[in-house]
Amino acid sequence: MTYIVSFLLSQIHSNFTFRANADFLENDIRVKPDLDALGALGDAGWYCLRAILWAANYELPKTVIASRNPEHNQVGVILACGATLYWEDGKAATFYCSFLSNTSTDITALGTKGTLHVHDFVLPYEEKEASFYAATESGVDEGVTKWVPQPSKHVIETEIPQEALMVNELARLVADIKFKNAKPEKKWPTISRKTQLVADAVKASIDRGFEPVQIQE
Amino acid sequence: MTYIVSFLLSQIHSNFTFRANADFLENDIRVKPDLDALGALGDAGWYCLRAILWAANYELPKTVIASRNPEHNQVGVILACGATLYWEDGKAATFYCSFLSNTSTDITALGTKGTLHVHDFVLPYEEKEASFYAATESGVDEGVTKWVPQPSKHVIETEIPQEALMVNELARLVADIKFKNAKPEKKWPTISRKTQLVADAVKASIDRGFEPVQIQE
Repeated sequence: MTYIVSFLLSQIHSNFTFRANADFLENDIRVKPDLDALGALGDAGWYCLRAILWAANYELPKTVIASRNPEHNQVGVILACGATLYWEDGKAATFYCSFLSNTSTDITALGTKGTLHVHDFVLPYEEKEASFYAATESGVDEGVTKWVPQPSKHVIETEIPQEALMVNELARLVADIKFKNAKPEKKWPTISRKTQLVADAVKASIDRGFEPVQIQE
Repeated sequence: MTYIVSFLLSQIHSNFTFRANADFLENDIRVKPDLDALGALGDAGWYCLRAILWAANYELPKTVIASRNPEHNQVGVILACGATLYWEDGKAATFYCSFLSNTSTDITALGTKGTLHVHDFVLPYEEKEASFYAATESGVDEGVTKWVPQPSKHVIETEIPQEALMVNELARLVADIKFKNAKPEKKWPTISRKTQLVADAVKASIDRGFEPVQIQE
């Protein structure tokens, strides 16, 4: 199925939260300053930032300003945080990540001609399908009694779950190098590095008292 | 139907956008500095702020910081803007409003035990019903293959559209004063004033170069 939404992107919002149990908050590597020291930002926040970069066609934002309400544990690891990301063309994105709120995994992308909503972008509600809602040139009827057209739900089915597809992709890339003399694929390290640059900028903004932090490629 | 979600609220996001046509952007009172001078903030943004205050049980935020990418028309009226609102207890809200993006009217509220999504909070998709999605203590199955439980959709039906209900309410309040010696109802002016206080703080933050603005009741 092909669905084309033609628009200039103006605003993106993403949140990934889950409520970690007491054992996780005490013992998980994601809450240890000498292990995954970026905490909720390096775990849940990473998905939000990747989703935002995906929506922005992997163009890096220019400036990041962290929200002023991060939560830290007793050893200084982030348990919840957010930020606003600004691009040079005027578009912006906000995100929020947390180990302390009920599960949510949302992407909302607003453009001049269309709107996208995804609610299960990290783990699909069901293993064999994922869905999104898209709207193009939404309006209302003459009496302003209802939306015309309304957003439509699109279901993408898959026989192979995303984790297996990831292993397939890695095996394919390794095999191409090993048996076909291919060069290492640049796509994944490039977008991983961009995600890390934005995550680091969010952390730097928090550490500098929520000052704007410039991102340099 | 009663649906109870018990949680501490941690984060709210709301957006209300629509793409105004050329005639609106040229001639509507909402784009004239001597008429509705708050522009998109006073029109679409007002709904977002009211929705956020509703989710926060009408408790005023303490601090407002505007996003750094507002759009203005040639005579200085806001065509798009956003902000982050901070409460003393650590919760925060973000919003985005615009006359330049495709129609969207969303509320997302995240709490420790539950999640709420509404996508048609300004004008329902259909005149005689409105819907929301709620999730309580969401988790995943043992193999992390799907959500258990998944968010559930709730449809609220109404024979009378919201605009008529508003007129009914106004008529009831007037009749109570005129015929029953009732005193003026405090609810509506109180929440209207709170909404205006927050809208004014967003405008002040924009005018002061995106500095934090304190809200005083």
